[in-house]
Amino acid sequence: MRTLVRDLAGQIDQSVTVKGWLHKIRKLGGLNFINLRDRSGLVQVLIQDEVEAEKLRGLQIGTVLSITAKAVKDERAPGGVELHEPAIEVMVPVTDVPPIEIDKPIDHKAENFDTLFEHRPLNLRNLQEQKIFRVRALINQLIREYLVDNEFVEIQTPKLLAGATEGGAEAFKLDYFGQEATLAQSPQLYKQMLVGAFERVFEIGPAFRAEPSMTTRHLAESTMLDIEMGFIESHDDVLKITEGLVNFVIGKLWDNNEQLLKSLNATRPVLSESFPRISVAQVHELYSKDTGEDTTKEKDLSPAEERFISDWSKQQKGSEALFVTDFPIEAMKFYHRKNPDQDTVMWADLLFRGLEIATAPERENSYAKMIEQMKAAGLDPEHPGYKYYLTAFKYGLPPHGGFGFGIDRFVQKIIGLSSVKEAVLFPRDINRLAP
Amino acid sequence: MRTLVRDLAGQIDQSVTVKGWLHKIRKLGGLNFINLRDRSGLVQVLIQDEVEAEKLRGLQIGTVLSITAKAVKDERAPGGVELHEPAIEVMVPVTDVPPIEIDKPIDHKAENFDTLFEHRPLNLRNLQEQKIFRVRALINQLIREYLVDNEFVEIQTPKLLAGATEGGAEAFKLDYFGQEATLAQSPQLYKQMLVGAFERVFEIGPAFRAEPSMTTRHLAESTMLDIEMGFIESHDDVLKITEGLVNFVIGKLWDNNEQLLKSLNATRPVLSESFPRISVAQVHELYSKDTGEDTTKEKDLSPAEERFISDWSKQQKGSEALFVTDFPIEAMKFYHRKNPDQDTVMWADLLFRGLEIATAPERENSYAKMIEQMKAAGLDPEHPGYKYYLTAFKYGLPPHGGFGFGIDRFVQKIIGLSSVKEAVLFPRDINRLAP
Repeated sequence: MRTLVRDLAGQIDQSVTVKGWLHKIRKLGGLNFINLRDRSGLVQVLIQDEVEAEKLRGLQIGTVLSITAKAVKDERAPGGVELHEPAIEVMVPVTDVPPIEIDKPIDHKAENFDTLFEHRPLNLRNLQEQKIFRVRALINQLIREYLVDNEFVEIQTPKLLAGATEGGAEAFKLDYFGQEATLAQSPQLYKQMLVGAFERVFEIGPAFRAEPSMTTRHLAESTMLDIEMGFIESHDDVLKITEGLVNFVIGKLWDNNEQLLKSLNATRPVLSESFPRISVAQVHELYSKDTGEDTTKEKDLSPAEERFISDWSKQQKGSEALFVTDFPIEAMKFYHRKNPDQDTVMWADLLFRGLEIATAPERENSYAKMIEQMKAAGLDPEHPGYKYYLTAFKYGLPPHGGFGFGIDRFVQKIIGLSSVKEAVLFPRDINRLAP
Repeated sequence: MRTLVRDLAGQIDQSVTVKGWLHKIRKLGGLNFINLRDRSGLVQVLIQDEVEAEKLRGLQIGTVLSITAKAVKDERAPGGVELHEPAIEVMVPVTDVPPIEIDKPIDHKAENFDTLFEHRPLNLRNLQEQKIFRVRALINQLIREYLVDNEFVEIQTPKLLAGATEGGAEAFKLDYFGQEATLAQSPQLYKQMLVGAFERVFEIGPAFRAEPSMTTRHLAESTMLDIEMGFIESHDDVLKITEGLVNFVIGKLWDNNEQLLKSLNATRPVLSESFPRISVAQVHELYSKDTGEDTTKEKDLSPAEERFISDWSKQQKGSEALFVTDFPIEAMKFYHRKNPDQDTVMWADLLFRGLEIATAPERENSYAKMIEQMKAAGLDPEHPGYKYYLTAFKYGLPPHGGFGFGIDRFVQKIIGLSSVKEAVLFPRDINRLAP
């Protein structure tokens, strides 16, 4: 019967069997110590018997061991327990020295990313590195909890599409039994169609984008949370569910996992219950005033402006998350809704700690206007990629909106990582397709 | 303030506002009735005022309405409430008659699948059809609950791969910035690598297979649950977690949603706590004896044998789920583990109601044997698709196993649908890439 390391404290003075990886070997005052790692943590084992010590001769970090020993209370040992008088069984011997030191802090400097990902299967054995992905799993869990509680139905939509429904240039293309298919850049059209059935839907899944630039914020494959909700009273309903989600996830995550987060040097985000809302025009104005660089003619925010307005929000409004609203009409996509009274789109971006995390627009829901807007955007409403989508409008879609929300970026910023890639187990960019 | 239909019973004799879709129009004894649908159900509205009735003239099913009316107790009405004296606001008019009758039972005969999926955005508005996907969402939720409770860490692995790591013929290929990439047929290699870090991992995500045949059990894109667990004592540990999961999910699903499931004509599966285990050789023997058709030389089970042995298990063993074990060595994949004492593989299939739902093998975990097995299978251990994978073995992987589990098939069989496609919102096969 295997005992997990974290449960050893309940077995003092008893004989226990632990199983795990040889994580560290140390000589201390003439004594042999090893650290054994399992999924729950590390335990130190004192090896005095020479026959047992001999079993480890020539074996390297990573060797898989089963150790039966006595659990001894020891305040100085990690977890308060040390194992004595071990009987060691080598389950899987490792004879080569690993190319990286598992126990050493992982270097997360951008110039070392190639090394970081080249050694991914091994550096994830580092307890600190693992924590990033334990936090990521918790975040996904909390997101689902909030959305299910708010009556969103989880959907799974196809990633193989008949057309590049959201701009062809960045779509990966492939041969699908003799037909051209593209990989989904988002579940955009599907989630809108499904508002007609379920009113509220969400999906967490991969999104693909042939993004040729190398930045700290883009990936060729990312994990996106997409939601869509019908019968909104106004665009602000979409913002409310967004800020509700962010407050719930970050609040619960920190309430329940403070130690884990602090051990990653994460700091608890300062968030207001209702996030500040500031228009793109206002951001340009504030930024231009502050820096002397005139950005008032730009349709989007630059990364520098995103960081600037995030700092401003934190300092002036006490919130590290905010909405930038009212994007200019030039940035509009065919499925967005125009503001009736000005040349802007009912579209808000959620910024968090200097980075755009989500895009949360209201959609045009009139069939006639949608056809108009598609034609104006140079799209063919008869294309199979749109035909079914338009059916949903023709036969009645209520006012609706939703967001595409970057899980990778959210994890990055919650922990405080320098690049989105560090928040991904096996990231994909223009130069990296393996591991 | 909007009231959902399901909450009307708490608002008797009060003025309420409901919002939803015009679902049905009826004349009954000279009176005008409509049914309004929202995400929570249907409510009947009696329209006596001619001015109000006039607002609906020429409008069709799907028209989006906001109705303010008095909630009246009426035992004969669905939900026990009827709305009287409505003031109707047409939010989105629909003027075309929908191509299908939303309120009519959906025809799920295989020969009508083209119609079924051609009208998908509309037939999902049928309340009965929707239930399939509400059940599906509940199943996904329960699967995650069980696995998180059992300390599996949820992972998200890339779907864009450097090589066709599990047999090239059925992999979709695409151009990835000038390099050839394939779409993942499963997270197989990733989940095994991650056993070295987290011991226990799971993922629910899309899997892609260029499957050229048209059957009731195959899709070109399916949703798979993949798990992998380290430090198993024997292959049976993998089967135990599999049967534990199936019993938990089906048990809780039925305990909490009996009415929903019965309304779909689903029947509660009969399951033993420990599922029967029967070898492939035994299945061939029983089947050959029963039918006179000799299958004892086959390496796999035919669909007819899967149905036969499922019936046998239900009748003889009182379980609609069972494991077929000990697949012959000819069926072995390079990452499987051979039985030391016979020419079979430590591989079991989970059959449920006549269909293979999951494949649950133990893996070879020795680096040296893995290299041997790859070479024997004609694979190049130096290929980037395998290089990183093998690193995990070289530096110590404990005994491990896991399964690939078809969510679509599981949903199909829980509800009792005739094809896996009916359990998928927007299925993909050789002939269908849209909607």
